[in-house]
Amino acid sequence: MPLTDIEIARAAKKKPIQEIGAGIGIGSDDLLPYGHDKAKVSQDFIEAVRERPNGKLILVTAINPTPAGEGKTTTTVGLGDGLNAIGKKAMICIREASLGPNFGMKGGAAGGGYAQIVPMEEMNLHFTGDFHAITSAHSLLSAMIDNHVYWGNALEIDIRRVVWRRVVDMNDRALRQITASLGGVSNGFPREAGFDITVASEVMACLCLATDLKDLQRRLGDMIVAYRRDRTPVFCRDLKADGAMTVLLKDAMQPNLVQTLENNPAFVHGGPFANIAHGCNSVIATTTALKLADYVVTEAGFGADLGAEKFMNIKCRKAGLAPDCVVLVATIRAMKMNGGVAKADLGAENVEAVKAGCANLGRHIGNVKSFGVPVVVAINHFTGDSEAEMQAVRDYVESQGSEAIVCKHWAEGSKGTEALARRVAEIADAGAANFAPLYPDEMGLFQKIETIAKRIYHADEVLADKKIRDQLRAWEEQGYGDLPVCMAKTQYSFSTDPNLRGAPVGHSVPVREVRLSAGAGFVVVICGEIMTMPGLPRVPSAENIRLNDAGEVEGLF
Amino acid sequence: MPLTDIEIARAAKKKPIQEIGAGIGIGSDDLLPYGHDKAKVSQDFIEAVRERPNGKLILVTAINPTPAGEGKTTTTVGLGDGLNAIGKKAMICIREASLGPNFGMKGGAAGGGYAQIVPMEEMNLHFTGDFHAITSAHSLLSAMIDNHVYWGNALEIDIRRVVWRRVVDMNDRALRQITASLGGVSNGFPREAGFDITVASEVMACLCLATDLKDLQRRLGDMIVAYRRDRTPVFCRDLKADGAMTVLLKDAMQPNLVQTLENNPAFVHGGPFANIAHGCNSVIATTTALKLADYVVTEAGFGADLGAEKFMNIKCRKAGLAPDCVVLVATIRAMKMNGGVAKADLGAENVEAVKAGCANLGRHIGNVKSFGVPVVVAINHFTGDSEAEMQAVRDYVESQGSEAIVCKHWAEGSKGTEALARRVAEIADAGAANFAPLYPDEMGLFQKIETIAKRIYHADEVLADKKIRDQLRAWEEQGYGDLPVCMAKTQYSFSTDPNLRGAPVGHSVPVREVRLSAGAGFVVVICGEIMTMPGLPRVPSAENIRLNDAGEVEGLF
Repeated sequence: MPLTDIEIARAAKKKPIQEIGAGIGIGSDDLLPYGHDKAKVSQDFIEAVRERPNGKLILVTAINPTPAGEGKTTTTVGLGDGLNAIGKKAMICIREASLGPNFGMKGGAAGGGYAQIVPMEEMNLHFTGDFHAITSAHSLLSAMIDNHVYWGNALEIDIRRVVWRRVVDMNDRALRQITASLGGVSNGFPREAGFDITVASEVMACLCLATDLKDLQRRLGDMIVAYRRDRTPVFCRDLKADGAMTVLLKDAMQPNLVQTLENNPAFVHGGPFANIAHGCNSVIATTTALKLADYVVTEAGFGADLGAEKFMNIKCRKAGLAPDCVVLVATIRAMKMNGGVAKADLGAENVEAVKAGCANLGRHIGNVKSFGVPVVVAINHFTGDSEAEMQAVRDYVESQGSEAIVCKHWAEGSKGTEALARRVAEIADAGAANFAPLYPDEMGLFQKIETIAKRIYHADEVLADKKIRDQLRAWEEQGYGDLPVCMAKTQYSFSTDPNLRGAPVGHSVPVREVRLSAGAGFVVVICGEIMTMPGLPRVPSAENIRLNDAGEVEGLF
Repeated sequence: MPLTDIEIARAAKKKPIQEIGAGIGIGSDDLLPYGHDKAKVSQDFIEAVRERPNGKLILVTAINPTPAGEGKTTTTVGLGDGLNAIGKKAMICIREASLGPNFGMKGGAAGGGYAQIVPMEEMNLHFTGDFHAITSAHSLLSAMIDNHVYWGNALEIDIRRVVWRRVVDMNDRALRQITASLGGVSNGFPREAGFDITVASEVMACLCLATDLKDLQRRLGDMIVAYRRDRTPVFCRDLKADGAMTVLLKDAMQPNLVQTLENNPAFVHGGPFANIAHGCNSVIATTTALKLADYVVTEAGFGADLGAEKFMNIKCRKAGLAPDCVVLVATIRAMKMNGGVAKADLGAENVEAVKAGCANLGRHIGNVKSFGVPVVVAINHFTGDSEAEMQAVRDYVESQGSEAIVCKHWAEGSKGTEALARRVAEIADAGAANFAPLYPDEMGLFQKIETIAKRIYHADEVLADKKIRDQLRAWEEQGYGDLPVCMAKTQYSFSTDPNLRGAPVGHSVPVREVRLSAGAGFVVVICGEIMTMPGLPRVPSAENIRLNDAGEVEGLF
């Protein structure tokens, strides 16, 4: 029996976080410890390194996810360790996990096997309290909106048009839709309301895109919380909530330093939804890491059609970042599923299915190249992958003008990614990337949607009724036309039909709804059902989570 | 202009928390740091010192609070510093502040003037995340209740009889009364629900009374969340939420070590409501401090009629603690208000009013003595108190067989409490205390209420209708008869009328409602209106809270 992720994580020989910090030049005064294995980096330090030159930025993304798993985070961690193993100075930047969902389905490692970030339990529980701070800041604004209405409503908020929903970091379907302020005069004016999960909060998106606390406060102030009867917006700033919210977020804004199993440094910071938000770790973590390391390996949510697209068009555009190399993760098993094999049959060798599934991979390669960034494919090796299957992928990728490298970090740690690391470093060092976002700021909002639909999803058309087109035009007239668009669609397909694997063509992209995240700075384009408050399953994992006699957490993994 | 509390706090020369820990024998491995000035004490350390002998326990309590202020926490901190200044090894134990209310009214110092605990900002914001953990644990159970109903309701919960309300650590009146689970089949069964503020959560009371994590889990499991149609209770344990909740609380259960302005050690841990709960810092903090110091100075919420009574009858009874000395805090100004002077006229000398107001003080002295514990009165000195006024209090207290000592810790720090410290140490060392709770476990619940009403409030009678008496009898039959009672009444008077200052007689105590906190282990007796979810004022302090250019928090104080 191989060890489980949690067994491997518990056996980790962690170094004191001060040692990890010292390795990247952060003195212990500039590290705010949270226990012995987590720390936040001080604002002063971040300010002090702002003028340093940047290291190379490497994005790890993936094919469309399948139930077979692709191992994107595992590869991110493995590549970070691999770069360090070949003598490069590398850091990893990934997102934080949301607490609530772990009590429904089991929590997850940050990575897997011998490519993990630790401490695993804390990262699945309260960690350094960032998400709690976001919940608090969000809740303060929620309370101030209804309080403003209660005390006379000088801003003339139309209580039927409050667009600011409440949040909680828990899967609580009973709060999706509520009637609030019941019970008479002393409790306010009854109105319809509801809760989302914290990661769906616009506060989260603002924090993850902000360059510093001042920029954070400006973004928070810009958030639209409601409309008046004349449809003019009421901003967070109008309620004077932005200052206090920033105070609540001042520590949450600082990146969290932790380590891999191989004691290499990692920032784990921020965790916006990958559908109604951009799904990347914080800008401040990535930009700071680029000052501290020669290579920064980061990742983006879902497959490359959603995650890499948003990383490029939203995060890089807004933060002035430019990736030097993209690693596209694929597995033989996922290729087979894209080629039509059912999950139960993945164990059998099936070179033809692998070849058929490569269409999905190929389209992602082309898409990423269209941003002007070189691509390497990492085949995340699973026991049972056959040499013929791997060769089929290698051949296919070569035919696309790229190359595929088999990685065994899950089983071997950095030893399993040395080849990938060497190649990635070579590409990044060569400076061949010529990054540009897919569309210019000044393109119309609907044209931006069309651009993504046609050039990334390879769809024929975008379907949107007059109401949606009118709304987009109205925002353009209000000065929001230069914002990027943030697509919310299924992660399982290039199309909006989750069952359409491979590389579908001839499909349409129907836009159901558009939302303005004026603080985060994007227009959310919803194509299909998007759930912003999950429910718990029939038997929540919480029922089996407990402390054992050794004080260890059981049942979380 | 004297410096403000926050100016003094910011100028504090804090020592690294590891040094503070070392001073009481906690090695840095056993301190889990949160930044450089806060730390949690490890479970292992707490277990390791359990068999050590206890130091002396000193409770600081007060007369009934008036708008003039009495300075109970300030005196707690001042006495702790004073004991250290005269060469004794002393620790302080106080409660944590709730985050939410600071955004309505301004936050407060832990102490005041030169008798404060720092870091002040953090203690008014997220601190070490304990309250967020309590909110999370509470929210998990909330979600699991409705989730259970959603998936078939095998426990046959009557959704009209769910007694478990949700919580949030924010003043949000719009959530006091809601209808949840609206929106159709996928969101559950619509029902009435509502939110309290986190400090009112029974989880908080459980955490603060638990002796260790096992005991915590047992208490959480014992909580009653709902009733069936046949009125039988459904427990937290029935939903299998207690294990996961304990996991969420495993760090919150550990006491937080901070320091005074004079670098003396203080545990700031837990903060249950002082009305529907017992209003004391955690048992684990107090019992651990007693192993580390020769004198532990702690306090209880509100005046001695509520705070000291609950400290003795609930906390000490349950934790096997016995106070060695009680310090009763009074101010000349509060004596005057108890003697009938209006707040605007407090500046003028008025010896007769002071004498009249002493009746309140005198009754508290007698009450505390009835627990078998010696009492010293601390006159918390304000600029403008006249010598004649102070002498009047001294004379009165002497006539009651006790003594009053003037303390100037607000202006002078430990120098201002040396006399008090010497006397308190003398009394504690003499071992004159012969503590016993006011009533035995086996007394009937209604008789317990009567005992407190008559012997502490000096009321003539308790008024309770048949429904309430029947409910108490029903709980006795169900095995809850041995629980102590937790009185929820106004803090401003011995009676239930907040305007009745001094030492009223001939009054009645009407019981409006009784609630069973089966996990915390007490029956809450509600006498009057108790607000468990505050609202924000017309101009919330949040509107003025912000970071200044130096990164400091403005407007919180």
